[in-house]
Amino acid sequence: MQKQVKFDRAIKTKYPEQVVIAIAKDKNGKANPVTLGWTMIASGEPPMMAVALYKGHYSVKCIRHSKCFTLVYPSSDMAKPALFFGSHSGRDIDKLAEFDCKTAPAKKIDSVLLGDAVANFECKLVKQILTGDHIIFIGKVVASHINARRKKRLYTIGPGHKLGPV
Amino acid sequence: MQKQVKFDRAIKTKYPEQVVIAIAKDKNGKANPVTLGWTMIASGEPPMMAVALYKGHYSVKCIRHSKCFTLVYPSSDMAKPALFFGSHSGRDIDKLAEFDCKTAPAKKIDSVLLGDAVANFECKLVKQILTGDHIIFIGKVVASHINARRKKRLYTIGPGHKLGPV
Repeated sequence: MQKQVKFDRAIKTKYPEQVVIAIAKDKNGKANPVTLGWTMIASGEPPMMAVALYKGHYSVKCIRHSKCFTLVYPSSDMAKPALFFGSHSGRDIDKLAEFDCKTAPAKKIDSVLLGDAVANFECKLVKQILTGDHIIFIGKVVASHINARRKKRLYTIGPGHKLGPV
Repeated sequence: MQKQVKFDRAIKTKYPEQVVIAIAKDKNGKANPVTLGWTMIASGEPPMMAVALYKGHYSVKCIRHSKCFTLVYPSSDMAKPALFFGSHSGRDIDKLAEFDCKTAPAKKIDSVLLGDAVANFECKLVKQILTGDHIIFIGKVVASHINARRKKRLYTIGPGHKLGPV
């Protein structure tokens, strides 16, 4: 039986929600990571992935500047940096430098990969769409990488940014 | 340590992946459900949700006809109908009639709600974007419903459409 409630309450049934990190360089060449849960695959052939970012976020500027981004599936042992990347702006700080994050240059785009992640997808920006207070960026995947070790993905497992494996 | 692999292999690290059911009526008034994993929230204020559908699917016609859709979070005990809705076309059959699905009319749009679901979101179509071989439909949420009983959401927990709770 269904009962009508406000959206804010209904959307709390979404957990566990996948977490990804989008990384794009700003105009000074600083790679800026942001953690987000609003993401999906958007095409099978060619492969494309989408992320929705709040329109006021610094990452919007970075992706628009670089015209590409890395979409990272963080591993469950990356909860601490993932929470930081999602709750701090990269306008005035170098978020990657705050942690002992292993990075490597991307192969096909001007961005970086995260060494401890489950997977990294290099995406070239192909479309951006304003949807309410967010912007959807669609990237075509031009290179993919996985961790040589089997790791679990990171999820938001409950309200209040509670992160963990499922 | 990351190693470069083909996209098809890298994307297998996506599990568990959330599952939703999108329901829209066709021109004959038949409510047509389709199960999919490519979905995300697309705006906070106003609330919007997005689904990506293969461009050749019957559901594309239904959503374009109705200009609205219900986005359903199926419960983990709906694995059987969810698998069927995702693997059969509604062109020639009434998918909802194949199962003992409790339905109720939506309140604000011309669609139906699924009684056994974790949640139902009534969405008015606001945008559609072609991305590769899929079309992203963006819906503005105009009414939300949750199950009076606490239930677990359904996920694809591994390759081969293995469905279950997490």
